[in-house]
Amino acid sequence: MDVISVIRTKRDRGELSPEQIDWVIDAYTRGVVADEQMSALAMAILLNGMNRAEIARWTAAMIASGERMDFSSLSRPTADKHSTGGVGDKITLPLAPLVAACGAAVPQLSGRGLGHTGGTLDKLESIPGWRALLSNEEMLHVLDTTGAVICAAGDGLAPADKKLYALRDVTGTVEAIPLIASSIMSKKIAEGTGSLVLDVKVGSGAFMKNIEDARELARTMVGLGTDSGVKTVALLTDMSTPLGLTAGNALEVRESVEVLAGGGPADVVELTVALAKEMLDAAGIKDADPAKALADGSAMDVWRRMIAAQGGDPDAALPVAREQHVVTAPESGVLTRLDAYGVGVGAWRLGAGRARKEDPVQAGAGIELHAKPGDTVTAGQPLMTLHTDTPEKFDYALAALEGTFDIAAAGTEFSAPPIVLDRIA
Amino acid sequence: MDVISVIRTKRDRGELSPEQIDWVIDAYTRGVVADEQMSALAMAILLNGMNRAEIARWTAAMIASGERMDFSSLSRPTADKHSTGGVGDKITLPLAPLVAACGAAVPQLSGRGLGHTGGTLDKLESIPGWRALLSNEEMLHVLDTTGAVICAAGDGLAPADKKLYALRDVTGTVEAIPLIASSIMSKKIAEGTGSLVLDVKVGSGAFMKNIEDARELARTMVGLGTDSGVKTVALLTDMSTPLGLTAGNALEVRESVEVLAGGGPADVVELTVALAKEMLDAAGIKDADPAKALADGSAMDVWRRMIAAQGGDPDAALPVAREQHVVTAPESGVLTRLDAYGVGVGAWRLGAGRARKEDPVQAGAGIELHAKPGDTVTAGQPLMTLHTDTPEKFDYALAALEGTFDIAAAGTEFSAPPIVLDRIA
Repeated sequence: MDVISVIRTKRDRGELSPEQIDWVIDAYTRGVVADEQMSALAMAILLNGMNRAEIARWTAAMIASGERMDFSSLSRPTADKHSTGGVGDKITLPLAPLVAACGAAVPQLSGRGLGHTGGTLDKLESIPGWRALLSNEEMLHVLDTTGAVICAAGDGLAPADKKLYALRDVTGTVEAIPLIASSIMSKKIAEGTGSLVLDVKVGSGAFMKNIEDARELARTMVGLGTDSGVKTVALLTDMSTPLGLTAGNALEVRESVEVLAGGGPADVVELTVALAKEMLDAAGIKDADPAKALADGSAMDVWRRMIAAQGGDPDAALPVAREQHVVTAPESGVLTRLDAYGVGVGAWRLGAGRARKEDPVQAGAGIELHAKPGDTVTAGQPLMTLHTDTPEKFDYALAALEGTFDIAAAGTEFSAPPIVLDRIA
Repeated sequence: MDVISVIRTKRDRGELSPEQIDWVIDAYTRGVVADEQMSALAMAILLNGMNRAEIARWTAAMIASGERMDFSSLSRPTADKHSTGGVGDKITLPLAPLVAACGAAVPQLSGRGLGHTGGTLDKLESIPGWRALLSNEEMLHVLDTTGAVICAAGDGLAPADKKLYALRDVTGTVEAIPLIASSIMSKKIAEGTGSLVLDVKVGSGAFMKNIEDARELARTMVGLGTDSGVKTVALLTDMSTPLGLTAGNALEVRESVEVLAGGGPADVVELTVALAKEMLDAAGIKDADPAKALADGSAMDVWRRMIAAQGGDPDAALPVAREQHVVTAPESGVLTRLDAYGVGVGAWRLGAGRARKEDPVQAGAGIELHAKPGDTVTAGQPLMTLHTDTPEKFDYALAALEGTFDIAAAGTEFSAPPIVLDRIA
């Protein structure tokens, strides 16, 4: 086997054989295939595609590059969720304890943010004392004793994916559906969950800008999960406007706690409950009532135990940014658009996100929204509050927010799109 | 400017701007753009193409990456030739002194062989004492005093091309016509020749296997040369069977000297004279008679002076391989096919060529042919003689020669294809 013949096969629109795929993933992981060879292959895959059999084998080869976890010792069925990422997407925070409160075990291996979308671990790290990095034993212990765990994925899981993802990031080959799908699914399958619900975001603030691409990605991932024995369902959900009223680390934790306390913004509650129902259904738990578990405090109980089990103090005050700046409505009327991407970039520029993997994030930075599309606003009322420890960044963030909202004449009819756009099973 | 936006432009079938091209070639040469980024771009170019303006700018940027030579101090017009490479293609050896004997100055910067095609420098290095590596001053001196020089291209000429070619070689991105054309032409234009004749080979032993691809490559290169003020003509020539009766280093020098002495195989003489006429015509020398310069010994005189000027002894005995093996005709009849690629690989396996740049070559190794397509053969007569210093390679070479020739019943009509298939000006 040699790498040039593998590259040529895909370059010339051929189908990669199982042997070629197994060999190239293994050789790349071991450093026998060089970065410049893998990036040429990734570009050929991006432009010429892979069929279902190739994607399945590619995913299996990435899983085989590392360890597999095993949750079969747990007494409860496992259910996991993956979101393709969006602005204000704090759903994992209330969802994991909620689903655990309803009877499933929720092993939520999460990542950090890069670019305009936040990362679940960055958000939770704004809670004083909370630790993202657990050993496999610690992780199983938290999961077993509290029903849910949110932590960093270990280095042992699909190392081929870790290496390939870093390469794609610098070579313009991120946007290939076969590679996106296999990257996500290799980690989820290696993690060993019994069921998986995918939240595939669509819109300006999401990776997938249009619903056709999102649907293709969702179908590909559902196929991969199903073929590997993981019960997999995908929801396509709206990301044209931010989720909830906050984008930023501590800001989003605060909002998540409001949801767990039975309150919180309607869209966050709706999506949390919809995803919880899918996860419980996929895990075979038929008679659970997630809305009740939010109302009666049982989800909050799991949250408090889960945070404490990872060193966090659920009662500690959350960090607050040193400086605030308020953006007011320039006119009265109906807010008809509030662009997710603009808000995401604004929050990122205020310090909530990072440009490079090694950058730190500010716990208190971000954007608080005071109105959402469909709301009536009055000239001069606050529309957003910007939070940061580095006030010299206000102008830079405000530039990103320019043109991100539209206000129409009072009385204009406006109906926001539904949160859940489609379901793929 | 950032490299990912450049890659994305070509990936998404856009046209690269002059600024993008200039920046990416310069940044790659300086190591700011990494190999894995350039290989992704090369694959996108291979699959999505470049238009004439992009190829011209790409070529200009590669020329600008290094020094340019200047032959304007010479009293004669300059004429150069480039062959895309074939089996038994020793044409440069008799051609350069022949064209010089007819009044042009011939600066022939040549390369070494890689794979199944031989390299001009490897061939000449079989002459005892001959040196391929000259300083720019030495090169100009040999050219000025003898009329012709064949030597290695210096490191200063189009360094971007050197780096990019090495990358393409290991990433399955060699076969992109825009990149092949700009690679060849950047060196020829930087070299500063006033006119250029391209010998684009077509057939099993050539890089281009079919005439449509060869024609596209020829047109692209003629366009590039013309746009840069170099009078450029291309001949498409047959490479379905080896040129002449030898493939190997010293073997081909011996045959070239036969041609310079007024003899030699008809096909080598025909192509040498055809290319000489094109070069002289492009250089504006109208009344020369290359056939006469071969017959009257004036081309041989230039050869002897040129070899001597680079330290070679034109009267020295050429190296001979230690072992020979004869392949005989299995039956009587008409030889209707003798495959160039098979003979090329056979000669390479005997030690005439190299697998990696740093490998040595054997001066005496190669294959001598005793019949060519169209010839009548008798069962048991010698068809080829294999030469090598490493007789343990005979079986390996014979395996490459299996199935490389066909013998039809005696009396079968057969007409060999013409040497020159087409002309593009």
